[in-house]
Amino acid sequence: MGDHYEVSEAGAGALAIPSLRWEELPEGPAVVLLDQTRLPAEEAELVCADVPALVRAIRTLAVRGASLLGIAGAYGVALAAARGGDVDDAAESLAQARPTAVNLGYGVRRAAAAYRSAVAEGGGAPAAAAAALAEARAVHAEDAEASARMAEHGLALLGELLPGGGHRILTHCNTGALVSGGGGTALAVVLAAHRAGELRRLWVDETRPLLQGARLTAYEAARAGMAYTVLSDGAAGSLFAGGEVDAVLIGADRITADGSVANKVGSYPLAVLARHHDVPFVVVAPTSTVDLETEAGADIEVEQRPGREVTELSLPYARGAGASADSGIPVAPLGSQAYNPAFDVTPPELVTAIVTEAGVVSPVTRHTLAEVCSTSRWSTSRSGNGMMAE
Amino acid sequence: MGDHYEVSEAGAGALAIPSLRWEELPEGPAVVLLDQTRLPAEEAELVCADVPALVRAIRTLAVRGASLLGIAGAYGVALAAARGGDVDDAAESLAQARPTAVNLGYGVRRAAAAYRSAVAEGGGAPAAAAAALAEARAVHAEDAEASARMAEHGLALLGELLPGGGHRILTHCNTGALVSGGGGTALAVVLAAHRAGELRRLWVDETRPLLQGARLTAYEAARAGMAYTVLSDGAAGSLFAGGEVDAVLIGADRITADGSVANKVGSYPLAVLARHHDVPFVVVAPTSTVDLETEAGADIEVEQRPGREVTELSLPYARGAGASADSGIPVAPLGSQAYNPAFDVTPPELVTAIVTEAGVVSPVTRHTLAEVCSTSRWSTSRSGNGMMAE
Repeated sequence: MGDHYEVSEAGAGALAIPSLRWEELPEGPAVVLLDQTRLPAEEAELVCADVPALVRAIRTLAVRGASLLGIAGAYGVALAAARGGDVDDAAESLAQARPTAVNLGYGVRRAAAAYRSAVAEGGGAPAAAAAALAEARAVHAEDAEASARMAEHGLALLGELLPGGGHRILTHCNTGALVSGGGGTALAVVLAAHRAGELRRLWVDETRPLLQGARLTAYEAARAGMAYTVLSDGAAGSLFAGGEVDAVLIGADRITADGSVANKVGSYPLAVLARHHDVPFVVVAPTSTVDLETEAGADIEVEQRPGREVTELSLPYARGAGASADSGIPVAPLGSQAYNPAFDVTPPELVTAIVTEAGVVSPVTRHTLAEVCSTSRWSTSRSGNGMMAE
Repeated sequence: MGDHYEVSEAGAGALAIPSLRWEELPEGPAVVLLDQTRLPAEEAELVCADVPALVRAIRTLAVRGASLLGIAGAYGVALAAARGGDVDDAAESLAQARPTAVNLGYGVRRAAAAYRSAVAEGGGAPAAAAAALAEARAVHAEDAEASARMAEHGLALLGELLPGGGHRILTHCNTGALVSGGGGTALAVVLAAHRAGELRRLWVDETRPLLQGARLTAYEAARAGMAYTVLSDGAAGSLFAGGEVDAVLIGADRITADGSVANKVGSYPLAVLARHHDVPFVVVAPTSTVDLETEAGADIEVEQRPGREVTELSLPYARGAGASADSGIPVAPLGSQAYNPAFDVTPPELVTAIVTEAGVVSPVTRHTLAEVCSTSRWSTSRSGNGMMAE
């Protein structure tokens, strides 16, 4: 059944189980997920044989990450079509499974449009289902292809910035195969460096409050056999001071027209530290992340997440172990207020380069960014994609 | 029984239960502690009626913090003397209860020396026990007095630096009444600002990995009725970027002769952010923290703590709730390496001022620091004190 899975081993990072795949099981087609809520404790597959199961998986974060949600949404539409369900209903419930996940809607719309075109062309239900699946695979393959290009451009950039090799790279949050149809963004570049024998150490920010670094990036790094070390976010300062960081590589949730980068909270302090210590600060993101309609960083509305992510300790797989589904183990006094922005914004003057699938933007200016985006094959389909990971 | 407790309400911060006190109970004298391992979930007293009980309390971190450990050590010697125990044995076991806690040894030595002097003067056991207790009370009172002076100098400094009032102060770790015989260091200044109606908001870094900010500083802030907000350490960046921080106030574990400040890991990134945003970065610490025999920050050996503080989630009061006494809830993959320095070092050029009980050092130079230290009443008794909090 592997032949229809279009992502190569190399492109998919080093996961034991692909983060998402389409399977033709004896009892019918299914979307099979690597259940991310159980990582890194367990590598478990979650088989979604119908759309409600997939919607549940999206809601419970078994599948997560901007690009991967888009792919899941597209396959979900294909699943409804293949199972003979109501495709419009399925598309709607998938698109609304997570209200702020714009990529999800993007993937759903592409597969649904392909389905409707095929219906309009009179090919009948089987042809329309095949068209939806083909489009889902195209969304998947495009994302894997973009990852591969970013890895290639990023590796070349590292070679230029750090000609001595033996890179010691600091990263934040999770930007690998777990959030992508391919190898991901920043972590795909790190993986390429590792495979080229150029990675001396990956420093993994634990990434409070949700610990995506300690849980997921460390998992991917361990799977790939990298030399990696986890640290509290605040410990990055002494690494810089000790000259232990050669470059910072992060992803992006959104990049505005002026080159401001919104990414997981904790990214901006790394940019300031990197500048203070004259260390390159590199953002890796597809051009679909660039939102040319938003002028500048100040125009980005930052999502404030529930305070209890900070005031309580909670791990999905620790439930039943002192934490219920609705609350974790209290840390701060009851009633404590928390400031918990989902991301922060790094201004372009602190960004050494933005690595996209279409090339490297450096220096980062309104002009250089627009130029690289204009050469992207996705430059016309950008609206509606490229916002809000996690 | 309150009359022998020499710390005023104001000086002791706003704890419901003093962090440590001497009690003459019907069954004999005791050292009564606020059990910090159960905060903020519970405010429980721990009555230590003999030295082994106090040693256990020190080992299990029921009592902690540089200054408070010194006081505990001194009262421990007094307790042994009052109970008719072997004072030399008691002094030794107290001093070794935590190997790196230098203050502990300082308090123990002072009380033991007073005891031995009294014995040498032929006053007999009761007089020697009284001398040990008087010395412990002196250690306690000096610390409370130093806190009060730091609070006073710090408040005046804030008035100069931020003449508009309505301070929004960011702090890191726990530096209040829980670690001191008085109001503490940085948090004593914050409390003074609050009582003067000058505190608009206290931003509390949660302070990974041990969460002293979220657990203990938030507890003290709540008790005092401050407007406070807890945040992940990495979220401080967006507060600075948004102009929401007027000053950073932190304590110090050690200050070297050149004015370099070793403090809880995560302090240095705040100093770099503060400089980038032109926000005052103020260190509050007694002159006993200044180690004039260590030349510069680079000469400080940084303690590396167990990696599992980062790779596992563990809260003392959550034991039995998914975590055993020896291990927490795993976060990172099994076998993950962690970088977990206890503190980091901020160079003097990033420090706006050091507030001591003897006055304010600003600008921070070798010369200004030595000058303020020379006016301190503790300037001759410094060796052996002033290292390694927590």
